[in-house]
Amino acid sequence: MATARTPSPRRPAINDPGLLTAPETCLLTDQYELAMAASYLRQGMNEPAVFELFVRHLPPHRDWLLVAGLGPALALVEAMRFGDADLGYLRRLGFAREFLDHLAGFRFSGRIDAMPEGTVAFAGEPLLRVTAPRIEAQLIETLLLNQINFQTAIATKAARLVLAAADSAVVDFSPRRDHGVDAAMKAARAAAIAGAAGTSNVAAAKRYGLTPVGTMAHSYVMSFRTELDAFRAFMRDTPENAVMLVDTYDTVQGVRRAIAAARETGVPLKGVRLDSGDRLALSRAARTLLDRAGMGDAAIVVSGDLEERQIAELVAAGAPVDVWSVGTDLGTSRDSPTVGGVYKLVADRRDGAWRPVAKRSPDKATLPGPKQVFRHIAGGVMREDVLAVEGERLLGRPLLEPVMRDGRAELTDSLDALRTRSAGELRALPTSTPYPVLLSDRLVRLTADVQGMAAADLRRPLEQHGRT
Amino acid sequence: MATARTPSPRRPAINDPGLLTAPETCLLTDQYELAMAASYLRQGMNEPAVFELFVRHLPPHRDWLLVAGLGPALALVEAMRFGDADLGYLRRLGFAREFLDHLAGFRFSGRIDAMPEGTVAFAGEPLLRVTAPRIEAQLIETLLLNQINFQTAIATKAARLVLAAADSAVVDFSPRRDHGVDAAMKAARAAAIAGAAGTSNVAAAKRYGLTPVGTMAHSYVMSFRTELDAFRAFMRDTPENAVMLVDTYDTVQGVRRAIAAARETGVPLKGVRLDSGDRLALSRAARTLLDRAGMGDAAIVVSGDLEERQIAELVAAGAPVDVWSVGTDLGTSRDSPTVGGVYKLVADRRDGAWRPVAKRSPDKATLPGPKQVFRHIAGGVMREDVLAVEGERLLGRPLLEPVMRDGRAELTDSLDALRTRSAGELRALPTSTPYPVLLSDRLVRLTADVQGMAAADLRRPLEQHGRT
Repeated sequence: MATARTPSPRRPAINDPGLLTAPETCLLTDQYELAMAASYLRQGMNEPAVFELFVRHLPPHRDWLLVAGLGPALALVEAMRFGDADLGYLRRLGFAREFLDHLAGFRFSGRIDAMPEGTVAFAGEPLLRVTAPRIEAQLIETLLLNQINFQTAIATKAARLVLAAADSAVVDFSPRRDHGVDAAMKAARAAAIAGAAGTSNVAAAKRYGLTPVGTMAHSYVMSFRTELDAFRAFMRDTPENAVMLVDTYDTVQGVRRAIAAARETGVPLKGVRLDSGDRLALSRAARTLLDRAGMGDAAIVVSGDLEERQIAELVAAGAPVDVWSVGTDLGTSRDSPTVGGVYKLVADRRDGAWRPVAKRSPDKATLPGPKQVFRHIAGGVMREDVLAVEGERLLGRPLLEPVMRDGRAELTDSLDALRTRSAGELRALPTSTPYPVLLSDRLVRLTADVQGMAAADLRRPLEQHGRT
Repeated sequence: MATARTPSPRRPAINDPGLLTAPETCLLTDQYELAMAASYLRQGMNEPAVFELFVRHLPPHRDWLLVAGLGPALALVEAMRFGDADLGYLRRLGFAREFLDHLAGFRFSGRIDAMPEGTVAFAGEPLLRVTAPRIEAQLIETLLLNQINFQTAIATKAARLVLAAADSAVVDFSPRRDHGVDAAMKAARAAAIAGAAGTSNVAAAKRYGLTPVGTMAHSYVMSFRTELDAFRAFMRDTPENAVMLVDTYDTVQGVRRAIAAARETGVPLKGVRLDSGDRLALSRAARTLLDRAGMGDAAIVVSGDLEERQIAELVAAGAPVDVWSVGTDLGTSRDSPTVGGVYKLVADRRDGAWRPVAKRSPDKATLPGPKQVFRHIAGGVMREDVLAVEGERLLGRPLLEPVMRDGRAELTDSLDALRTRSAGELRALPTSTPYPVLLSDRLVRLTADVQGMAAADLRRPLEQHGRT
């Protein structure tokens, strides 16, 4: 293993909050990207190359992906600069002066085509394609994967929760279980794209214009002499937040006390939150009590280790729940916490001529050349995707579009527009699995040629799930 | 659900990198923390309170936790300030002027006791205890959980990998699969505490003084006319990184070419990396070829979707692997991606008198009062932990120690010291499960008193695993 020298950090590690500014993410890269870039520079190999980001197989428990993370990823690529401290560190690691001088002037200048956020995607399809001088394309790999893989995992999970909730709402309660600060910001954003109605994360609500939501904690209730005292105080002190957490002592009693506190204070009860116990029975009991009290507008909010199967079962059973507050499962995509996106060279220019490239490792073969995806929709439902050689014109909707030119992001959609796209995509989800992803005739011929494979082996749909 | 008004963000969401500075993490909080704090201020309820952070049950597939995240968490707590933009946003959400004035002067002034990072912990044990004016203690909850939960999950997973690897090394290759920028920084740090020998993440290596490691990608090899050309170029251009990725075309041929390139260039071959195929057979074949070539010092590095069971099997089978490069499983703790830490009020002071507090919800009952954990070790092995009332003196080693006083972190260990502690803890892991965590007599009496439970029910070990 190449270990190089290890300079001492300038601050004691233990007291460092560990946050990076956007330009500092230039070093949020695998060491090998820098080693390869240094070699490319020395070899004079900096002609344009094309890389595609895709998943070889869908993750376990997933039949499609909802793409997310492009906006933040492109913002980081735009901001990427190597500052003096970064260059000093790389110098101490042994990188050559010539390479450091090159990095000092680094600015991504390439082109990126991608599926916009909120698009449904399948295995084998490029989610994103980078066309740039080889060194630039190489140096943004880790950052692109770091942002797009996990945000796509969270958006996909959130979409599953939103679908399970049907006409009721899902909100993001995940900051305490997300994998750090960046994950919490992006989980709220990805969930919003997937259709979540709000987030408990105030920083994300501020940054992304989302709806901040919340109630109270058990510790609040326990901090007063009685539950009734707690409800009265909360209603008077912060009437715009009048959702009462009713399960600290006894849930049904709690609902009665919430009603009593609303009557005493005159503050309209916005809702009650049930965080434990039999959600079906308790939501019904709560609904009955609230309706009898003339508080039909008070919402029933349910929380506590929810996942989509449980939500779907409660919805099917007719549980009168208005809002599902989901933390751990939404924020970590617990049953499938990773999307295995990879970033592979598909073409490069040598001596003025473009050349399609493919990887031939037996279990990791790739499809050569820049590609486009065409989607066939009929009767409002996705029927088939066809992977084609970039430049082909096929029937169906092309999914990749230019999103960055000359290193400048050209994203114009608002978050609302992403959410609208996502809702449309989720309405058109295929009705059976696995979804057929086929290769165009031209791509079959090119792949057979580059890979040395029989064309017949390429005329069946791409495998969507890995063998496990 | 309390939704309040939703102001528009000042920048278009889609183009925002979504990173926060340390002070800005003041808003990385669940909305209800602010709502409760506003009510406490209005009620004049800002006397000291004690909260403890613990897990109710161990996560699936885990019999212990390796605690991590304290250093970054305390650094963020120290840095927490409400700036003008934050206060302006909260004003637009409807928070009262009096509360905003209070927040403008916010600075955490409390005391924190905690298990130092690198300590092994079990369910029911406080990992951390906060003693502070109630509002301060409340406002740091989300941030503490956001940092400590996931870093403990990653450190625990990394420790399992390190144990499986026995005498060989584990390195962190996870940035592309980690959940964002902060996760990548902290995954490298948590893995280092758990005993990882290096990280591919250059930013984390720089920040935390870790050993940066890396090889080359398949795209590098494919960018040259032949594999041999690629190896020669890499050795000449970046000789300190002379680990060759040998499976792009044919692994055994690749090893032969790596040997040939080293002979031609005179650059010592540091190692070969195997990223696909039968790792046992290929590592043996590679070792034989390297040894025959007189390159006994060249390391065998294995990568590609590794997890601890597979590593343990290969180690047991005698695979001659020197370094295991682990990405997804290490960085996401894939089989158990969350640690369910909660933060619960255990005592507060009312009218000058301390009062132990407990939550009585049937499935979420808590133990009242500030607590200490005493660990019994015999024959170098952990035998039993006893949860005691803070202030009790029992046999065994107390696990919580003061780490912050008057809002100032008092952490003095280096990362090396944390790693040394962790190694000692892992050597002393209990030999059977579930590990016994008992309550002291005083804690039994206190709990029976506050919870209204029979003392006999409290004299058995705490449940370590949830019913699933």
